[in-house]
Amino acid sequence: MNFCSHCGAAQIRATMPYGDIGLHYICDNCGQIHYQRHSVVAGCVATFDDRVLLCRRAIEPYSGLWTIPAGYVEIGETLEEGAIRETREECGAAVGSLNLLALYDLPMFSEIYVIFAARLAAADFCPGPESLEVKLFTAEQIEWKALAFPMVREALRDWMAAPQPTPVAKADFFWGPDGGVRVRRKA
Amino acid sequence: MNFCSHCGAAQIRATMPYGDIGLHYICDNCGQIHYQRHSVVAGCVATFDDRVLLCRRAIEPYSGLWTIPAGYVEIGETLEEGAIRETREECGAAVGSLNLLALYDLPMFSEIYVIFAARLAAADFCPGPESLEVKLFTAEQIEWKALAFPMVREALRDWMAAPQPTPVAKADFFWGPDGGVRVRRKA
Repeated sequence: MNFCSHCGAAQIRATMPYGDIGLHYICDNCGQIHYQRHSVVAGCVATFDDRVLLCRRAIEPYSGLWTIPAGYVEIGETLEEGAIRETREECGAAVGSLNLLALYDLPMFSEIYVIFAARLAAADFCPGPESLEVKLFTAEQIEWKALAFPMVREALRDWMAAPQPTPVAKADFFWGPDGGVRVRRKA
Repeated sequence: MNFCSHCGAAQIRATMPYGDIGLHYICDNCGQIHYQRHSVVAGCVATFDDRVLLCRRAIEPYSGLWTIPAGYVEIGETLEEGAIRETREECGAAVGSLNLLALYDLPMFSEIYVIFAARLAAADFCPGPESLEVKLFTAEQIEWKALAFPMVREALRDWMAAPQPTPVAKADFFWGPDGGVRVRRKA
């Protein structure tokens, strides 16, 4: 951050605002505090007949290595919607029955990973533009040395330990037609 | 966003970058894409002897109403660390044994709520600067009409349905001394 996105001044300073915790960018010209936020990644360990869907990355980092479908949750979508979209984009596959499998913190990147266990309705998939290849693997067939990000190994390990995880309480909050907040329950 | 935080130009446009999904702010001067990110809130349904710790808010919004301790996760801390810190700040209470209780999506605010069930080691608490009062409540004593944010009602409902939630796989990723990624397992 070089310039204030509010007033355009080049008077940005990392400091601890009064009454606050942690370092934040503050503009010495207009006083705006620029809170840093998190990147939230959602992904699926998607299975068909006890086999897990992996895709081989066509892009850096870790091009050529295998991963579960996962990516940044967009503004305006829910965690499940993000996980379903990434699986469609990277693996050309439709998943349902999502259940929270694992939650990972990567504080050094300000990232949160939310990994769901999901089911493929059919063995129907094809690589999207970010993938070289998509394949179903039994637990024994997984090439552990050919996995991309460290979180992929952990997610597959968590799936092997609990292929059908206990549902976690889940709710989505939306605006109702009257402008009030509505709650949609998942489990 | 009025100015590019990278180059300072006032040529910000909300558009869909090529090969991308969703609307993002892009700078027409330097080409920087400003991805919007999420606000992550962590909180605790903290209990002592089957009673739940609530605090009465001293600040807007919902000043005077009751809430569970919760707040924005800072950059560099984990979800649990955020939930523990907020409970200390708002309720003057030390909690441990955190287990994921519920996960909420608020896509209209780009917010994710991560709520833990936690235990107080002792009935030892006092209001912080953002609270008027801190108290332990049995499920029967909860004043449902005097609760703050809609998520508080959902979290208390989830706690009543599963006071001791099944642990969810949890890992924190950190830099190791050799610059590689280390994984710290929770469950």
